[in-house]
Amino acid sequence: MFFEAHRARLDRAVQAIDAREYWSPYPESPSPSIYGEDAAKTGEAAFQALLNNRFELDQPGTGDYTGQETSPYGLELGITYPHSDPAALVEAASAALPGWRDAGPQARAGVALEILKRINERSFELAHAVSHTSGQHFVMAFQAGGPHAQDRALEAIAYAYAESTRQPTRATWEKPQRKGDPLRMDKKFTVVPRGIGLVIGCNTFPTWNSYPGLFASLVTGNPVIVKPHPRAILPLAITVSIAREVLAEAGFDKNVVTLAVEAPGELIAGDLATNPAVKIVDFTGSTEYGDWLEANARQAVVYTEKAGLNTVIVDSTDDYKGLLRNLGFSLSLYSGQMCTTPQNILVPRDGIDTDQGRKTPAEFAADLASGVDKLLSDPARAVGTLGALANPGVVDRLAKAHELGEVVLASRAVEVDGLPKATVRTPVIVALDAKDEDTYTTEWFGPISFVISTDSTEHALDIFRRTVSAHGALTASVYSTSENVLSDTELAALEAGVHLSENLTQGVFVNQSAAFSDFHGTGANPAASTALTDPGFVTGRFYVLQSRRHAPVEGAEVG
Amino acid sequence: MFFEAHRARLDRAVQAIDAREYWSPYPESPSPSIYGEDAAKTGEAAFQALLNNRFELDQPGTGDYTGQETSPYGLELGITYPHSDPAALVEAASAALPGWRDAGPQARAGVALEILKRINERSFELAHAVSHTSGQHFVMAFQAGGPHAQDRALEAIAYAYAESTRQPTRATWEKPQRKGDPLRMDKKFTVVPRGIGLVIGCNTFPTWNSYPGLFASLVTGNPVIVKPHPRAILPLAITVSIAREVLAEAGFDKNVVTLAVEAPGELIAGDLATNPAVKIVDFTGSTEYGDWLEANARQAVVYTEKAGLNTVIVDSTDDYKGLLRNLGFSLSLYSGQMCTTPQNILVPRDGIDTDQGRKTPAEFAADLASGVDKLLSDPARAVGTLGALANPGVVDRLAKAHELGEVVLASRAVEVDGLPKATVRTPVIVALDAKDEDTYTTEWFGPISFVISTDSTEHALDIFRRTVSAHGALTASVYSTSENVLSDTELAALEAGVHLSENLTQGVFVNQSAAFSDFHGTGANPAASTALTDPGFVTGRFYVLQSRRHAPVEGAEVG
Repeated sequence: MFFEAHRARLDRAVQAIDAREYWSPYPESPSPSIYGEDAAKTGEAAFQALLNNRFELDQPGTGDYTGQETSPYGLELGITYPHSDPAALVEAASAALPGWRDAGPQARAGVALEILKRINERSFELAHAVSHTSGQHFVMAFQAGGPHAQDRALEAIAYAYAESTRQPTRATWEKPQRKGDPLRMDKKFTVVPRGIGLVIGCNTFPTWNSYPGLFASLVTGNPVIVKPHPRAILPLAITVSIAREVLAEAGFDKNVVTLAVEAPGELIAGDLATNPAVKIVDFTGSTEYGDWLEANARQAVVYTEKAGLNTVIVDSTDDYKGLLRNLGFSLSLYSGQMCTTPQNILVPRDGIDTDQGRKTPAEFAADLASGVDKLLSDPARAVGTLGALANPGVVDRLAKAHELGEVVLASRAVEVDGLPKATVRTPVIVALDAKDEDTYTTEWFGPISFVISTDSTEHALDIFRRTVSAHGALTASVYSTSENVLSDTELAALEAGVHLSENLTQGVFVNQSAAFSDFHGTGANPAASTALTDPGFVTGRFYVLQSRRHAPVEGAEVG
Repeated sequence: MFFEAHRARLDRAVQAIDAREYWSPYPESPSPSIYGEDAAKTGEAAFQALLNNRFELDQPGTGDYTGQETSPYGLELGITYPHSDPAALVEAASAALPGWRDAGPQARAGVALEILKRINERSFELAHAVSHTSGQHFVMAFQAGGPHAQDRALEAIAYAYAESTRQPTRATWEKPQRKGDPLRMDKKFTVVPRGIGLVIGCNTFPTWNSYPGLFASLVTGNPVIVKPHPRAILPLAITVSIAREVLAEAGFDKNVVTLAVEAPGELIAGDLATNPAVKIVDFTGSTEYGDWLEANARQAVVYTEKAGLNTVIVDSTDDYKGLLRNLGFSLSLYSGQMCTTPQNILVPRDGIDTDQGRKTPAEFAADLASGVDKLLSDPARAVGTLGALANPGVVDRLAKAHELGEVVLASRAVEVDGLPKATVRTPVIVALDAKDEDTYTTEWFGPISFVISTDSTEHALDIFRRTVSAHGALTASVYSTSENVLSDTELAALEAGVHLSENLTQGVFVNQSAAFSDFHGTGANPAASTALTDPGFVTGRFYVLQSRRHAPVEGAEVG
């Protein structure tokens, strides 16, 4: 029933994934003129109403309630969630599978699109939930956790729908014979899901990183168990509750989508991921755990996004200020807690040519540091860019980073009026040498970057190719006025298996990737086993099964 | 250069995979009116000229020559092949990769299509090569090893081309801004191969089972090392030599395709499959080795076709004679040495309703046996259907099968004039009971089938669902006059993850699968990890990498 209502949007989305030009169906601006005069107020009230309460989901296997989320801005959320027995969730998902399978791609896409519509309508509430779990500042949480995540969800729906409807549902096969009538067979093709999907969410982008797997699995017929990060449950709890509401309205078993919340220290993901009925795992998080899943969840197809060494190659520029502004903002945005934030900035030892004259690595590092310092000089504006540190692990790592080399820019705490408990810190920039490979081939997740002196741009490309092939990366960028260097870097990026941004000096940043146009991750380096989103992200989620029989002879009586 | 020449055929093939109706570009009839008056004679002469000679491939790392193929019809082929060092082949493939990658999908598809064209022109020569390695009778070897394998190759090319050109190569992204000019980015998308492909061939269908992986990997940019079964080298040696000839003509490094022949007992497949540079493995063969590859070739994506329990559910029929004729032929064709040959025939204990009256399992088994016996009564015609047993393993298994239960039809040797050394055997049919699960849940590859008494059709469906889910199957079929039973069986087949043929009584057999229409394998049960061929068979073979830069401002001077 929802399919017809949303068909035009789906068709447009399928067109968008084929063109990969700009398209964004969910407006990113939290403007009252778009979302309504009361949207901000209603959304905040809805969020407030959730605090210090039980979050009910009416799930099977629910005994007690659990949850201990604390906002990086200091607020204790005080929300508890149904602590469902994982085995009961698997059983319920298995029971829900046949009905969801038999619904077919159109009905499933319709339900998915209706879920998304309602998610979009609750973008303000979700923004507060994302902000108070991830530490993203409100506007970023609104955009990245709301409309941008919704765009990514729709992109996944479009790929899942397009690939799972690529085969016809029926065909007549008619093979001419040398003598007599042709052989004729009627054939039926049915999409069947792989099994149960498990989506393991992360702390920093609970919706953006979870939605593609969630919606791709749903549209291809798989019930999904959503296992949120214990520090970022609320955004996915809201998502799951909306999904269950729409499923029920559409007449489906609402256990097609359930939430698996764990008690502190319970660590249920491993058991779920290796459950024989779980056939798809989508994971965002640490390399260590991602590698564990790939090695152990052998009964499932495993899509991981892990960590890497995002690299910037600085060769030369004709817009030095633009470079510093753009790169400085990329290092600062959400305190570098993006899987796309640059870490290793490679600068040739004998300096780079710029429109402001030649700059040595030390001069470059100092200019970058002063740019960042200036960007973050006003505390209120700084917190808008930085947000808060998501968890104590990042705080500890940031402290440790100051001991790794010559500190070009020291991190400082930002005191913000009205947010006394917020953990807001500016980035650290450390100068290293190419030989400090042990240091910069580890991912230092958080507001930690290295300006690394190399022998030459060629040397930098060699380091880039080698370290990213070995350790992975989600982004890479290059600054050069030479088309030869750009083209060499493109080749190195192809070989390292990472997407490349070139000469970003204006209003697009290396850590932004736009749904329907930019791919996020590639699968071609160790940082991720898949791209969000492309056909390869969805084709492993379903099978096409066929039945055939002789076609009735024409003119024959039908019993 | 070859792309334009073959573009119309490629376009037609892409249309065919979307419609899945009948289409066959390579004529299956070895008729002089199609292949030319001299084709048969020329092909045989070409085959004869290969015997007792070195097969030269001008490959790297070639030291000595090796090869010990003996035809199941008695002929010692006496052909030796370059015994190349596997490490040298990997190195040569790695060196060939960049040029092949940079050629792009169109040039690669053009080369692949030209290779296929020349393979097709040598179908008679290949038919002799397939017949004298697999034991298939000449006409079957011509069809299955020639045009049908070529159709499957083209199908794989079409999927590989369609999926790897689904993303545009360039796009302009233009995001409107509230104030001022839009943000504009130029984006480039490049298909890069996963790495080196390894194709591990089998004894019985050296070309048909190897071509999809070979051509899918090639078109998506991966150099391929072809590792033939030691008993069936020649068909793939001819294939590789044609590929190298076309590659060289097109100006590519011919080491894009190489042949890895092993000396007796050398077992090089495991080392090749786990070589870090090998990123794709296509395998057809035993469950044991397929499982080993899946568990150990962790650096690669592994596509396997293994063994299973092909099952027939007999419930009722309105064409008893048609059923017996069709099923009897399926059991006999190529002595049951097809991965699609029925093994477990489930018949309710209290009999089936037919247009010839009610038949108990014993009566059904006797009628099936006498049908097979009659089909194979004339030795010359019998060998045309049966071919020869491919290897001593099948002969031994056939002997052992006579001890498994009540022998309804004993196998006998067929003596054929002019083929004194040929190992031609008729099928064995053994009666079992549902409780003999230990026996019939093992695959008995070869001319070995079981008529198994069950409590009811419902019981049969339960056995079918359970045993195929656990042990896999490549085919399933059902005979029933009841639409309810057919529909229950369709559901059971969806749940077991196997394709289903219904009421085959005419000129289509369960062990035939037509390229461009029937899928072979599903990936949804343990018999195969993938379907030949669908989008999921090709999307794992490449990545799409992106670069982007600010678009030049319109009207600005260009340096």
